[in-house]
Amino acid sequence: MGEKDFSDRALVGDDSLSYVSREAFHAVREGVSDPIARAGLIADLCRINTLFMIMQAGSGHIGSSFSSTDLITWLWTEYLRDPNGDSDDADIYFSSKGHDAPALYSLLIALDKLGFDLLPQLRRLNGLPGHPDVGTPFIATNTGSLGMGIAKAYGMARANRYTGRSSRIVVMTGDGELQEGQIWESLQPVANEGLAEITVIVDHNKLQSDSAVSAVSDLGPIEDKFRAFGWEVRRGDGHDFGVLRDTLAHFATVTDKPKVFIADTVKGKGVSFMEGLACGDQTYHFHAGAPSLKDYVAATREMLVRVNDTLASLGRPPVVLTSAPVPVRVSPVSPEKIVLAYGDELLEMARHRPEIVVMDADLLSDCGIEAFKAELPERFIECGIAEMHMVSAAGGMALRGMLPVVHSFACFLSTRANEQIYNNATEKRKIIYTATLAGLVPGGPGHSHQSVRDISAIGAVPGLVAVEPCSEREARLAIRWAVEQNPDSTYLRFVNVPLDLPYAMPADYSLEVGRGVTLRAGTDVAIVGYGPVLLTNAWRAADELASHGVSAAVIDLPWLNRIDDRWVSETLSRFTRVVTLDNHYLEYGQGVMVAAAMARTGVRAAVTPIGLTEIPACGTNAEVLAYHRLDGPSIAKHVLALRQA
Amino acid sequence: MGEKDFSDRALVGDDSLSYVSREAFHAVREGVSDPIARAGLIADLCRINTLFMIMQAGSGHIGSSFSSTDLITWLWTEYLRDPNGDSDDADIYFSSKGHDAPALYSLLIALDKLGFDLLPQLRRLNGLPGHPDVGTPFIATNTGSLGMGIAKAYGMARANRYTGRSSRIVVMTGDGELQEGQIWESLQPVANEGLAEITVIVDHNKLQSDSAVSAVSDLGPIEDKFRAFGWEVRRGDGHDFGVLRDTLAHFATVTDKPKVFIADTVKGKGVSFMEGLACGDQTYHFHAGAPSLKDYVAATREMLVRVNDTLASLGRPPVVLTSAPVPVRVSPVSPEKIVLAYGDELLEMARHRPEIVVMDADLLSDCGIEAFKAELPERFIECGIAEMHMVSAAGGMALRGMLPVVHSFACFLSTRANEQIYNNATEKRKIIYTATLAGLVPGGPGHSHQSVRDISAIGAVPGLVAVEPCSEREARLAIRWAVEQNPDSTYLRFVNVPLDLPYAMPADYSLEVGRGVTLRAGTDVAIVGYGPVLLTNAWRAADELASHGVSAAVIDLPWLNRIDDRWVSETLSRFTRVVTLDNHYLEYGQGVMVAAAMARTGVRAAVTPIGLTEIPACGTNAEVLAYHRLDGPSIAKHVLALRQA
Repeated sequence: MGEKDFSDRALVGDDSLSYVSREAFHAVREGVSDPIARAGLIADLCRINTLFMIMQAGSGHIGSSFSSTDLITWLWTEYLRDPNGDSDDADIYFSSKGHDAPALYSLLIALDKLGFDLLPQLRRLNGLPGHPDVGTPFIATNTGSLGMGIAKAYGMARANRYTGRSSRIVVMTGDGELQEGQIWESLQPVANEGLAEITVIVDHNKLQSDSAVSAVSDLGPIEDKFRAFGWEVRRGDGHDFGVLRDTLAHFATVTDKPKVFIADTVKGKGVSFMEGLACGDQTYHFHAGAPSLKDYVAATREMLVRVNDTLASLGRPPVVLTSAPVPVRVSPVSPEKIVLAYGDELLEMARHRPEIVVMDADLLSDCGIEAFKAELPERFIECGIAEMHMVSAAGGMALRGMLPVVHSFACFLSTRANEQIYNNATEKRKIIYTATLAGLVPGGPGHSHQSVRDISAIGAVPGLVAVEPCSEREARLAIRWAVEQNPDSTYLRFVNVPLDLPYAMPADYSLEVGRGVTLRAGTDVAIVGYGPVLLTNAWRAADELASHGVSAAVIDLPWLNRIDDRWVSETLSRFTRVVTLDNHYLEYGQGVMVAAAMARTGVRAAVTPIGLTEIPACGTNAEVLAYHRLDGPSIAKHVLALRQA
Repeated sequence: MGEKDFSDRALVGDDSLSYVSREAFHAVREGVSDPIARAGLIADLCRINTLFMIMQAGSGHIGSSFSSTDLITWLWTEYLRDPNGDSDDADIYFSSKGHDAPALYSLLIALDKLGFDLLPQLRRLNGLPGHPDVGTPFIATNTGSLGMGIAKAYGMARANRYTGRSSRIVVMTGDGELQEGQIWESLQPVANEGLAEITVIVDHNKLQSDSAVSAVSDLGPIEDKFRAFGWEVRRGDGHDFGVLRDTLAHFATVTDKPKVFIADTVKGKGVSFMEGLACGDQTYHFHAGAPSLKDYVAATREMLVRVNDTLASLGRPPVVLTSAPVPVRVSPVSPEKIVLAYGDELLEMARHRPEIVVMDADLLSDCGIEAFKAELPERFIECGIAEMHMVSAAGGMALRGMLPVVHSFACFLSTRANEQIYNNATEKRKIIYTATLAGLVPGGPGHSHQSVRDISAIGAVPGLVAVEPCSEREARLAIRWAVEQNPDSTYLRFVNVPLDLPYAMPADYSLEVGRGVTLRAGTDVAIVGYGPVLLTNAWRAADELASHGVSAAVIDLPWLNRIDDRWVSETLSRFTRVVTLDNHYLEYGQGVMVAAAMARTGVRAAVTPIGLTEIPACGTNAEVLAYHRLDGPSIAKHVLALRQA
């Protein structure tokens, strides 16, 4: 970029967002006749809008969206018949990784399959979910939890054969995604049954989350692997439309087996400074968050210059972007960083305890263990996107005297490795499972990442005590308790949203299994919950209730599957009404445990569980909490309604 | 065998069991100097004892035990240093499949590592568990749920490196087991880290459960697959000790990568009529059950003749077996076959509903769907041991208009495909999950197969209604309700044990979501439960309570995660005491839901949940139920104690 002056070919404001209008897309789609030139222009224009969407949302996967943009543009504009349409021979396309949803939305909008009004609605309530959901037109299946796509394609192909439909099915996968065992579980049946209508495209951009795939868990010779599983394999430049066209033409001649195209791509393709790892850098900086406004503007300018240069060479008029204001976001003033506090305390203990080993499934920075890896790299094991392997490997380590501390997002750790966690439990060795990104918020990634059933999923594992800390202090106490005091295994559940907490733990607070702590005294109603999201909103509800003359206590009960009957009876029998809050489905959440304990111990207070009753909505955190009536005002309203009932 | 007279070389009674004594093993171990001849003799003698153990237990995996016997005999007698011992350089051996546990126990007994007193204790309480458990000496890890072994070996190897131990680790896997995605998830990290201390031996006996691997889900070129994942590969005859010796010698020279030996073996090796599929037969008959007494005697004679012929050729005296009585087993008189009734009703509906597709994960005969496959083979999909693939494929089929009915054991379906079930649920398409072998009994296979946390594991999946029928009639009603009435998805939980039921459903009984039915009227205490095991034992308890003057009602509540508050309030408020029974861990079982509903609806009865509080014991059904105090007498005793408290 340097000192170059783009003013004539790239009218992009320094202090606003810009997008490509419907009319601009129409001009290119209708005015450019060469398919390859046209696809290149559409792809770049889509990238501009993808970036706009991510800036509007404040988050989204740029790198993965950009690496796949050329591929999907060619597929949807030149290859697929009536893609994801209603006709009997409509072809099917979906992304198994799902992280590249912004790219597909951007393309669907460019092709008038989704309305332009949705452009600013990425990750908003009733807008475009962070990961694909069949509620959105032209989305074929729900993805975002990795590795399921090839199995789903198998099912679709079998169903099509039953119903006499002749769709071709194209599935995009990531390359890091190939670390998931389910991929390999599905490859063989698809080949054994000769499902030639299935084509997989591996978006092989060499980076997963923010590290090189080769550094995380190298894939070895990918082509040999697919061949050994019975697939027709081609490899080539995933940004060269000619290669893609020829590859798909070759695949059409193969009628007895499924096909895979290993597409060599570049993460962040299309913006020079977003493309792959910078020289000497081991961290990729554009995986999941929105870029700075400065980077945004530079990126948009670079792409627009390229588009307009091409248009000029074709004798076509330039694209002029439409501008939109930069959305204003309110940040917490002095938020508690609970996950970082946890990681800090763990590191402090590990310095003196050589048995502690930290394991991670490619979510290092979200699990608070970057400092651990930096200081004790020899006791840090990066397992890649391989939760089953990680958890069983932890079992093996525990059998040989180590104390493994296993990390992933709650939604994946508790479910993908569910059986492996149980198998470990039956060996009665101590393991700590640290599950982050728990609960309804952040609401942006959507239900594939909103972990709202993990308490149920692991709640009955014997000898596994589940705890959710509500503050930095409780997080430090919890990991210390798990390492030093709990003879059994522990499941630590953490919310990742930084929040200004209205409450403080009592100075002499210590953890006692099954027993809660009163954060705010009250006499009319007890609001019982756990974790920072619930308790912050309970506090706000208590404020509001106070203004209605209702005195509400706020009680932190961090234990998710252990309840001390004596504590229940001592603490809750003082109230005539108890409200439990769950950052989780109501079924088999903590509220059920509390209510059951009240019944068991004869506490006569009326009890009302509040929690999730439907699949979580996607949106901003405030939108999602309000939608599910777990924000302070909704809780207050619920309590007031109970009193009037 | 034919007309040959074995009387002089095989003294085996026609009406008793026979085993090889400690002394006989010592004579061979100490008296035969050629390692290969010695290993062959020990292996055959072990097979005789394995068969004895399985006859004593009434069940056990013969085929898999026999195919692996030669391999483990060589490993434990000629290759491993201090196997699974306490020394720092003790080698580690375990079987990832775990189904071949009887073979290993038999060998450990022959080698004096386990006492001969355990020989008749297979699958008995405090005896030798149906699948390996670290509570047994010389068992390195818990297996039986497939695919975890290589990951565990990875963890052990990493731990050994941390702690400065130099063990070699040998892991046995099945071949059908290679269908599990976790195997492939683990292969790459082991190779990437060059863990040359790990050797995998694939017991490639070509049969899984009772069908050919190639017919279930063909493995393709196994050697190419392992090579593509970075492993050193050798293939050879798994019953040829010379090949095994040479292969292990070669592996010792490879120091930069893990190794795998694809051992071509014969399922049931050692007994002519148990070896592989009989000519023209597609079903293997010696996978998991005990043989007939006639087959047992013939098999034992055949092996003993071979042993004694070899001993004679070596100039050694023959082995004389010790005899033991055939155990007497009491069978139910007129048992309900609930799973078969379910399968029959499903087939009846499928005849008229072309959208129904049945999917199976290699457990056909245990899931009541053999008749379905026979009559509607085109709508039967055998997925192999690939639960994740099966469930996501079902999701793909449901998206394209089919109604998939997905089958496996409850312990595997609910946990290995836990995330995939949830992902499907978020698409809001209808799928039926049929989970068999639920609950504590049969107690023989041990905790890897006793599904006692599946209610918790899937209880919070939105739009998934879990039901456990308690009779053939309720099973028929349940599958019909799931297909015809329930707009959402259903999880059908089935006990597989055939029982004489003491109760009958009321003539006009129909299923209503969340509502139970009184099977036996009573006034003093309500015993609430589900499924045939709990309700049969509740009935027995009620009989016993009646003799103490206590009138107990027995209430069937088949709904595991839906409770109708009005039903709770109408039905349970008539009692002063309610006892809930769970064939499941107490945490997050049905009892918690019932107690919570009582609290929520203000039912003031005292409530006591009874269920599992520890990892299930292995044993006969009667032993296990009594141990966990879920048999009739224990329930009665518990209720009486409550009344006195």
